[in-house]
Order: sequence, then structure tokens, then C-alpha cells
Amino acid sequence: MSELRSSPVAVLPETRAPWLLAEADLKASVGGRLSRVDHDRLSYSRDMWPLGLMLIRQGRSPTPPDFVAWPGTEAEVAALLGVARARKIPVIPFGAGSGVCGGTWAVEGGVAIDCKRFDAIGEVDSERRSVEVGAGVVGETLERRLNAHGWTLGHFPSSIYMSTVGGWLAARSAGQLSSRYGKIEDMVLSVRAVTGAGQLVQTPERPFRGPDLAQLLIGSEGTLALFTSARLRVHRLPEARAFGAFDFRSVADGLEAIRQLFRAGLRPAVTRLYDPFDTALVGNEGHHGGAKAVPPSRRTTLDKQVLPALWRVLAPQAFALTGLLNKASGLLKKSRLILMFEGERQRGVEELAAAEAICSNLSGQNRGPQPGEHWLAGRYDVSFRMSKVIEGGAWADTMEVAAPWDKVLEVYQAVRQAVSPHAFVLCHFSHAYLEGCSLYFSFVSSAGDERAQQTRYETMWKVALSAAVRAGANVSHHHGVGVLKARALQDSLGEGRQALKSLKALFDPDGIMNPGKLGL
Amino acid sequence: MSELRSSPVAVLPETRAPWLLAEADLKASVGGRLSRVDHDRLSYSRDMWPLGLMLIRQGRSPTPPDFVAWPGTEAEVAALLGVARARKIPVIPFGAGSGVCGGTWAVEGGVAIDCKRFDAIGEVDSERRSVEVGAGVVGETLERRLNAHGWTLGHFPSSIYMSTVGGWLAARSAGQLSSRYGKIEDMVLSVRAVTGAGQLVQTPERPFRGPDLAQLLIGSEGTLALFTSARLRVHRLPEARAFGAFDFRSVADGLEAIRQLFRAGLRPAVTRLYDPFDTALVGNEGHHGGAKAVPPSRRTTLDKQVLPALWRVLAPQAFALTGLLNKASGLLKKSRLILMFEGERQRGVEELAAAEAICSNLSGQNRGPQPGEHWLAGRYDVSFRMSKVIEGGAWADTMEVAAPWDKVLEVYQAVRQAVSPHAFVLCHFSHAYLEGCSLYFSFVSSAGDERAQQTRYETMWKVALSAAVRAGANVSHHHGVGVLKARALQDSLGEGRQALKSLKALFDPDGIMNPGKLGL
Repeated sequence: MSELRSSPVAVLPETRAPWLLAEADLKASVGGRLSRVDHDRLSYSRDMWPLGLMLIRQGRSPTPPDFVAWPGTEAEVAALLGVARARKIPVIPFGAGSGVCGGTWAVEGGVAIDCKRFDAIGEVDSERRSVEVGAGVVGETLERRLNAHGWTLGHFPSSIYMSTVGGWLAARSAGQLSSRYGKIEDMVLSVRAVTGAGQLVQTPERPFRGPDLAQLLIGSEGTLALFTSARLRVHRLPEARAFGAFDFRSVADGLEAIRQLFRAGLRPAVTRLYDPFDTALVGNEGHHGGAKAVPPSRRTTLDKQVLPALWRVLAPQAFALTGLLNKASGLLKKSRLILMFEGERQRGVEELAAAEAICSNLSGQNRGPQPGEHWLAGRYDVSFRMSKVIEGGAWADTMEVAAPWDKVLEVYQAVRQAVSPHAFVLCHFSHAYLEGCSLYFSFVSSAGDERAQQTRYETMWKVALSAAVRAGANVSHHHGVGVLKARALQDSLGEGRQALKSLKALFDPDGIMNPGKLGL
Repeated sequence: MSELRSSPVAVLPETRAPWLLAEADLKASVGGRLSRVDHDRLSYSRDMWPLGLMLIRQGRSPTPPDFVAWPGTEAEVAALLGVARARKIPVIPFGAGSGVCGGTWAVEGGVAIDCKRFDAIGEVDSERRSVEVGAGVVGETLERRLNAHGWTLGHFPSSIYMSTVGGWLAARSAGQLSSRYGKIEDMVLSVRAVTGAGQLVQTPERPFRGPDLAQLLIGSEGTLALFTSARLRVHRLPEARAFGAFDFRSVADGLEAIRQLFRAGLRPAVTRLYDPFDTALVGNEGHHGGAKAVPPSRRTTLDKQVLPALWRVLAPQAFALTGLLNKASGLLKKSRLILMFEGERQRGVEELAAAEAICSNLSGQNRGPQPGEHWLAGRYDVSFRMSKVIEGGAWADTMEVAAPWDKVLEVYQAVRQAVSPHAFVLCHFSHAYLEGCSLYFSFVSSAGDERAQQTRYETMWKVALSAAVRAGANVSHHHGVGVLKARALQDSLGEGRQALKSLKALFDPDGIMNPGKLGL
């Protein structure tokens, strides 16, 4: 990351002369909807990667795009790419900027292409249970529209208020209910995209035959093509939900419970196991925003006053407290599992009963439905509260990786150990599969001055990711790769590296599509 | 199909001089395991596409390969491809030849590469629940090995005794229990393959990040790369099975039942709805080889004697009887649905009860477990009995397509109507999804002489496929595309056609990989 350039917010870098000469053509290609004023360039210079927030606090900005464009049709996108190709101007597809890996950073400048004018939401085809959605539609907008007619997409990333369909596809997004509804790539029946060669691609609808082009473009983070729309599977709103929570004597027991649940064929919509310190935090029921579900009278003083105050004190002192907190959390053992089943009422009851039997066998203490209900009520809160933590030199960041069952505990311990000297570490385990699950780490730390902060942040990431990979994890589960994990991805690709490079050359012969992402 | 070349079995085409000059190099590349004797060339000239059987009856053969090679390592494959590229000699990856679309026909001659020496079956990784399997391993061999240790792959194509892992991947195979275990592409965690450019590709293991290269190669039918091995998900053998059967008043009611089952979240391992005439046939419980499940004393005379005799009489007269049979079957209404749940005992009982409620609501008459048990016992028999039908100028063939729920009935009726003048038509509906299901048609007909036979056969296919596509089906569900459906696939690709061509050029720059398949 150190090699990434930044500039003072007050003095953005000049646009290169040959690109300036192309401005009129770029502008014409999108019906005039192009800007190069500084506040637009600044707005599109970063996403939610904490490194960007740190820079902003330093009065600096990551390299901004030279232009921001708002095309509204596939023809406009193709025309824009045509101008960009001729001048070798990078283009950066931009959804809503919720990414946390720098996937929309304009590392070489160029044109940020905001996709939000691709905002059409088709009628739900109730026979086929699918809907055609523009790539620029924001998740919550789509979900509400669907809900109004009794449907749901089943995709609930915690960024749902500030992420788009196109962004989900670009990064292989997973929502909180992915165990039931799948990741975004499982929900896609077909996609439309414009490649870096300016070619419109409409993939055949599932179940189709032959090579699967859609799955090649999904996850390519704008390095091959720009999504314009997708046909997505929808579901009827669930008839009922059934919640369960179990406290295990250790993380290992909790993981074993999840593994057994999945192998028994159960498919909870939510499976979240909190490590001991995270359990201590969520154990206070209101912590994750339970206000909506719990009558005010039942909210504790701890919840209403003590914890927020504690956070305010902890944040700036995060690093100083790191050793203490990591040691304290090492003494805690209890690990809480939250389960939610949804769908047909009777089935939920039966599946929950089957899950309870498995958990009891592993000495899980039944905590009833409340913890799960509280989690659901506040499920998006954490993302939006995160910024409060980043005060006075502190930061918080998250790292999600995935590992097979036999490596999960090892990865957990390796990352905790590697990161402990640099940050306080929390973890929860979710998005379970037959083969393994995702590990979602939260890191909190701080440093005295800005330079020290950035150095510690980068060190933390370096040791965290390499510890995870060495212990058997892959580099990412659902946040994408972006700039942050580009090198780690390339290192992990092995024999596939050359094939990916060849595909890049094919789909983006001029190398203009979102340079630097995925290591391409 | 008419443009396909064939030659008398007694006089196979000569090998071109420049290719003959390469023989020593080809042979050296695979450690001497190369043949160009006629009986080897003939053996690899065709698969189970009925057109090949017709040709054989005429004493002819489809264009055979010039050579047959048996490489045993990836290095040998790469070396062989190197020689082939230099001379522009086509290569045709060959599994076990069970395809029914001509996917391994050497339409331009060249080298058939038999993959069966890639026969390693690794130890099951019981923690990760997966196993590394050579591409040349035959399905039944793999399944028995797994079963011996309490595992199953869950993949049961009716060709399982004569198809390989590599062939399954090449054609996106679906097994009879796909509703529970998925199609082969859902079972794959990673693949190893050698591309037409001689490059070894090892795809990262699921859940991985970025563009999904494995899903690009799967379904490419040897036109991009040759699979050498795959890591496949395995499952514990099911604890129990629960069977149900329901007779509906019409195909439409039966389809509605399946749709409701899937939308209620049920996941039967088997969902097979037979159209009225097929129901009349399977209604006789022993028809599909029930011998293993039903005590001999209970097998009926109808089963043991009448039906086989009827088939023997019908086969040569198939076309003459077509009008009568199609008309008679039009009078039948009853449509039978067979369900099988498998997994944990109690869950199966509960899911079957839920399914029974749905079926009863739609006036399905409960036929109990026997029809399902009988189907299971004889589930592979049909494939192997098929050849008996092809006697005295008759033929039988199958066409599988998939359609969304709102089009399934339309496709069924359109194909019946279009094919009725040319063949007797049966159909069953299986491999259900939330969006729709597959339609599996069986056609039986005959013609006087060989030329008339081939003409009628080709006409039948032409009208069948175009009726299906016009009514809203895709061109194939799990038999692959091969030569048979190549044009139909290309017609259906639309905007994706150029992208597929570009991918072909990238992975196979010399155009040697299995020419003519997928229309490439």
C-alpha cells in the first residue's frame, strides 16, 4: 500500500494534456454528463477502505480520477470506452463506493464511471421468479421495491444502503443470509456488460449450456467489463422465521456445531458464531442495536450508557489497550452461536429442533430466540457505527477470509497471534458451506501520529493476511480484492495467474479497465 | 447433420501426408502409446449418438480419428498438444464415449486423446469432504470406491457405468439426484486442465475470489482445454431414504406440484414427473427394472412377458404406429410424480409429509413408496436396454432441454405436436430448479430403408429442437451440445457468440481443440 500515491486535498493532480484534449469527446460520448471539477473528483477518489479515511484525516486524497462520467445507456458506455481506448485513459466502474479494499480507487487517474443511472427495476416475472435490475440500483431500494410486492432478493450485505447490484457482481458479494439464498453469483440468472473492448455481452439465462461467461465476469472487479444489468432470482417473502442461540464452551465446539448442522442438511439463513470477546460484547443483548426489537424498558444501563462510553474511551487508546484486551479475551472461553431459519413456518420449527439437538449434544447452552431477534433488528448498525470508532487516531478495519473446516481454527489462532501486537482482534464465523466457512475479523488499534498510524495499519494488514494464507485460508470471501489484497491474490493464483492475464488481454486489449485491481 | 462425412467401415480415410510425418513425434510425446490401426480408429470414431449407430448398421463410420493416443501425465498431454499445434492436427479429448450428441466425433480427423489413464482416485479428505479424482475415472468405479468408505459423490447420470469425470465436466452433466446434490458444476471445487495453448491450469479452490475460470472451462466440451483431474465434493452416504408417488389428473397439475415443492424449500433428491403415456408404462411397476427391489413373485406377467414382447413388435413398426400411439397417448391424462428424499431419517419423513400435503392439495392420488423404490432399483436399466429398441430400422433417441416454469407446458406441447408426424413421443420432467425444470423427451420411430431412416431422423431432430426453442426452451440441459446441437446453440447465443469465439482463440490459438463442437 505504501506505493499508492496521494495528494493534498487542496491541490489535486493536474490532468495530463492528451487526456484533457479528449475531454470534449468524452463529454459528447455521454450526452454531456461528464465533470472534472475538484469536488466531483474528490468524491470519487475513495471508497470505504479505512486507508482512505486515514488519508482524509491527513488532509490528503488518494489519486483522484481526472473525470467523472454518468452514462445512462450501454451505447454511451461503449462510446465512452471507445474514446478512452483511443487515448489509453483508464476507466473505473463505480457503484456506490462502499468497498473496503480500494476497488474503485483511480490509482492511475482516468474516468470514474458512475453507474447509478442504470437504475431500472423491471417488473418481477412471477412465473419465472426473477427480475431484471440495472447495475446502478442501490440494494435497499431494490429490496424495498420487491418487498412491497411480497418478494425478496435474499441478499443482505451490511452495506445494503450504500452498495449497488453492479458492485455486488463485481466483488462477488455475500449477504448475511447467504447460507440460505447463496452469494450474489448464485442469484444471477444472466448479466449484461460492456467489455473493455467495447463489446456488449448478454449471457444466456441459466440453466444454459457451454462455458459460463457470466461466472467469468462476476468477481472481475471492473477489470474486464462494466456491468449494466442483471437478471436476478427472487423469492416470496418468508412466511416465518425461527431463531436459536447457543453458548458453547469454546470456539472449537461452536465450529463443530456449525459443521454438523450443514452436514445434516440443515440450511439456516443465518449462522454466526462469535469468538469469546465478541460473545462478551453481543452477550449484552442490545449491543448490536437491539433497540428496535427490545422494548426500551428492557434495555440495560450497560447497553445504553456504559458500552458507548467505554467505546469512546477505548477508541483513542486502542493500541495502548491492545495487549491487555487481547490477553483478557484470551481468558474468555464462551462462544455464542446465533441461528435463524426462515421460510415455511412448520419447516422452520422442525429445522430449529434438529439444530437444537445437534447443539445440545455438543453441550451448547440454549439461549432461546432473543439473541437472534436482536441481531436481526440491528443487523446493519455496525457498518454505520464504525466511523465513530475512528476518532483521535484510532481505526477499525475488518478482514474476511474463508477456510476449509480443518483449517478454520488454525487460521483463527494464527491471525489472532500475528495481529495481537498491532491491534485488538475480534472474530466471528459466518457464511458456512459444506467445506468450510468465512472468518470475519475486526481489528481495532490506534497510533500517535499520522505516519505512525499508517505504518502500523499496513504492518497489521501484512501480518494478518500472510498469517491467514499460511494457515490455509484464501485471501478473501466477499469484500473483494481491490488494491488491498491484489498482491496476495496474485501470489495465491499459482498456475491460474497466466490464464487470468490472458483473459485480461482479451477482454481489455488496451488495459484501460480499472487498472491495479486484482493485481491486473 | 447431413453435411457430416462418413466412410465405409472397410475403407477408412487415409491420413494426410503431413500428419503421417508427425506420427513419430506424436508417439514419442506419449511414451509410445499411440495407435493408427483401423480397429482403434473405428472404436474411437463415434459415441452413443444414435446417428452413429445408424451409420454402423449401414456398414459405415463417421470420420474416424487418424490416431488414438493414451497419455498418462499432464506433461505428456502438453507435449502431444505441442506436436499437434505445430502441424495443426485436431485433437479430440475422449472419456468413455457415452455422449449422445457426437461430442467426441472426429469430424476433421486428428488425434483422439483417451483420458482413461488419468485414473487416480485420491484419499477422501474427510475434514474437507472432498476427493481429487483423475479425469479418466469411470463414474461407477469412483462411486463404489467412495461407497466402500461410507461416502458418495451424489452424481448418478444414467451413463454412470460408461462415462468419466472428465466427460461429465466437459458436458455439464446432471445426475438423477441433481435436485439434492447439484449438477457436476456444483460439485467441483477446483479443476486441472491443459489448454489448447499447452498451458496447465489449476483453478483455485472454492470459495475463491475473482473471475471463475473453472466455470469457464466446464461445459466447453474439449474446445478450450482437456481436463486432467478435479477436486470434487463428497457426502456421507444417506442415513435413510423416503419415497413418495402421486398420480395427478394432468401434466399441468403435476408440474404445479413440483413448482410448489421447490418454492416451499423442499429439496427432494429425485423429482420425476412422467407424462401420461410414460405414466402408463411406468405404472406397471416392474417396467424400469424393478426386479432388484420387488420379490420375483410380485412381478406381473405384464412386466415379465407382455411388455418386452410388445416392444419387440413395436420397434420395427414404430413409425407405422406413430400416429396411433400419439393419438392414444393424447387420450391418457394421468401423470405420475415420483419423489425421493434422502439424508437424515427424521428429516426425510418430515419433508415427505410436507410434499404429501402439497400434492394432496392438487388432487394428487398417493401411490405410496413402491413406485419410487422400483424406479431406484432399475434406474440405470433404460440406458442399456435402449439398444434393443434399435432393431430392424427403428430408432430411439432422447432430447433434453430446460425451460422456465411458465414455458414448460408450452414446450412440452409444442415438441409433441411438431414431432408427432415423425416419431412417437414420450416425456418426463426432472432436474427441477426454482426457475423451471428439464424436459426429457424420448422419440421412437422407424423407416423403410437406410436413407429414409436418416432423413426422417434428421427431420425429426430439426422440428423437435426448433419447436422447443421457439416455445421458450434452451437447447440442452445435461447431454451437452456436441455436433448435434451446435447450430442451435450458436443461434441462441446472441451477443455472447463473439465473446465465446474470442475465448476460443485465446485458449486454443491454433484451433485444434475438438473442432466443430459447440459450433466452434
